[in-house]
Amino acid sequence: MKLKTVLLSLVIAMATNGVQAYDWQALPSKAPEPADNPTTPEKVELGRMLYFDPRFSETGTVSCNSCHNLMLGGDDNRAFSMGVHGKTGGRSAPTVWNSAFASAQFWDGRAASLEEQAKGPVVNPVEMGMSDLEKAMNRVRAIPGYQPYFVRAFGADNPMSVDNAAKAVAAFERTMITPGSPYDRHVKGEKGALDEQQQRGMKTFHEIGCTSCHSGPAFDGPTMAPGSGFFMKFPTFEDSEYVAKYDFLKDPGRLEVTGKDTDKYMFKVPTLRNIALTAPYFHNGAVPTLEEAVRVMAKVQLNKDLSDDQVADMVAFLNGLTGEFPEQVLPRLPATPGWAIGSRED
Amino acid sequence: MKLKTVLLSLVIAMATNGVQAYDWQALPSKAPEPADNPTTPEKVELGRMLYFDPRFSETGTVSCNSCHNLMLGGDDNRAFSMGVHGKTGGRSAPTVWNSAFASAQFWDGRAASLEEQAKGPVVNPVEMGMSDLEKAMNRVRAIPGYQPYFVRAFGADNPMSVDNAAKAVAAFERTMITPGSPYDRHVKGEKGALDEQQQRGMKTFHEIGCTSCHSGPAFDGPTMAPGSGFFMKFPTFEDSEYVAKYDFLKDPGRLEVTGKDTDKYMFKVPTLRNIALTAPYFHNGAVPTLEEAVRVMAKVQLNKDLSDDQVADMVAFLNGLTGEFPEQVLPRLPATPGWAIGSRED
Repeated sequence: MKLKTVLLSLVIAMATNGVQAYDWQALPSKAPEPADNPTTPEKVELGRMLYFDPRFSETGTVSCNSCHNLMLGGDDNRAFSMGVHGKTGGRSAPTVWNSAFASAQFWDGRAASLEEQAKGPVVNPVEMGMSDLEKAMNRVRAIPGYQPYFVRAFGADNPMSVDNAAKAVAAFERTMITPGSPYDRHVKGEKGALDEQQQRGMKTFHEIGCTSCHSGPAFDGPTMAPGSGFFMKFPTFEDSEYVAKYDFLKDPGRLEVTGKDTDKYMFKVPTLRNIALTAPYFHNGAVPTLEEAVRVMAKVQLNKDLSDDQVADMVAFLNGLTGEFPEQVLPRLPATPGWAIGSRED
Repeated sequence: MKLKTVLLSLVIAMATNGVQAYDWQALPSKAPEPADNPTTPEKVELGRMLYFDPRFSETGTVSCNSCHNLMLGGDDNRAFSMGVHGKTGGRSAPTVWNSAFASAQFWDGRAASLEEQAKGPVVNPVEMGMSDLEKAMNRVRAIPGYQPYFVRAFGADNPMSVDNAAKAVAAFERTMITPGSPYDRHVKGEKGALDEQQQRGMKTFHEIGCTSCHSGPAFDGPTMAPGSGFFMKFPTFEDSEYVAKYDFLKDPGRLEVTGKDTDKYMFKVPTLRNIALTAPYFHNGAVPTLEEAVRVMAKVQLNKDLSDDQVADMVAFLNGLTGEFPEQVLPRLPATPGWAIGSRED
């Protein structure tokens, strides 16, 4: 019986995948988790609260969710995200959805893990703007209602630390994944999950070479050793008119992290899941529509000019990567007794 | 049987209320609704989405929930709220919780209804910063996923109007009420719902005169004809040292709305429900703690100096006004196809 099921799955898999001779993978129903931070319900609950809480930004107005909005595509639909005092940086917020599958975090991969990533924006002057992480943590400590949540998640021995707060946020983010897209259902053998146009787009997506980088279940590259990100040069074909039009040579990418010339214009390969929800596109958010983004990628990375039909097919396919979003209850955040946020920084 | 229940209720009511000879009222389980905007599940669903959606602010970063945060006390814990581009106004955000019971909206009562209120912040340059309401509505119209929600709530005949958006937000806000506080349970006869100190504080609250303004089920004054707000002069005793200390003569209040000298320093009497969650206090958010707020009110409005015990008792009582918050699922917001918010204003 069990063998029969396995064989049946194989037959379905061959029928589905055989055509394109490519290993199309569905998104796992659980994200991988590091040995030193197993995902527990208690951490997830605390992490959700911290994720939505704006009080650890200098002005008390910016939370993780401000730029990585879980009610939207996990980002903010802005070219450049806006932090405290209306300040903006030079990159577009990547989606938090399925970030648990990424080989590294940030566009330039400067954080190896979600735990490390979570600490960055808090002290970035154009994001949450706190002067240091301990000051941010002092704000958490000054909210008595958080104490029991930290104890439940991390035990009674000094649980309210920066590292534990980051671990809780990371654990929560590992539950923010979106399986069950039409693509996933198609790969699992559900007839009609992707329509004919979408299946044509899927074929084109592979045939023109998109899958050489956007591979794996999250379309963000192969599984890598923890901490070693999957980076590619963008733009690859610098002569394309798109490169000048969208100012793609302005941002040196990972060079800024490593200082190595070989890392110039190297960026993390981002996930394509839920891409229909995350306009505008690219690290600089310069391209508003998915149609144009597909044309740009084909030309700038693969030196290919697509027909209108090919573009339409691939956009239809990419729309099939929109998954099911886990329902979640709006958290209640513990009160801020005796505070006026914005009038003090401790 | 029914008569018996009524009589029993009366006996309980007399036993509870008789001591203070004051009509302590529990919060109704439903907010009143205007004849031209009955609350329906369809409007509430749409209103919740609009309430949480930041895309109708100039920068795409400020929603109703930014300053009236439903995860917190319905406000932002800031002295002065912060809108687009980090701009601030001169007043502290009032709580949205139980605003459905208020006799008028805004500190100066310049909106007669929740429907009217909802339109204000959208075009306030220091809040959501849109140049006019139709431009904000054009942003809603440019999100195709909103259309069916408007049709379900308002019918198929041109449903996507500014007025209907405001009606939906108001209908949602009428469900954001918090009955079931220890005070409410006490008034309904539940023994031990308020402890002895809280009951002493309740008595003091009435005896020193707080209930002359903070009356009714929401502690925001008597029921008024629709649109006629319940205003009081603040500060009343201008000689108090608190008036200078907290700069209470700076804001002329309702004078700015009506232009009448008799409205100088007139402010809407705010609800005291969930007051323990809404620090800092007063229209200018100048007072961070509830203890100090109680002392200030007694002195500035009633010319009374309270003992430390009286203050502690009344703070304990006010903590008993924290209600039960209706659980709600985080809304999914329809996608913004082909947009970069912040790069255009239409």
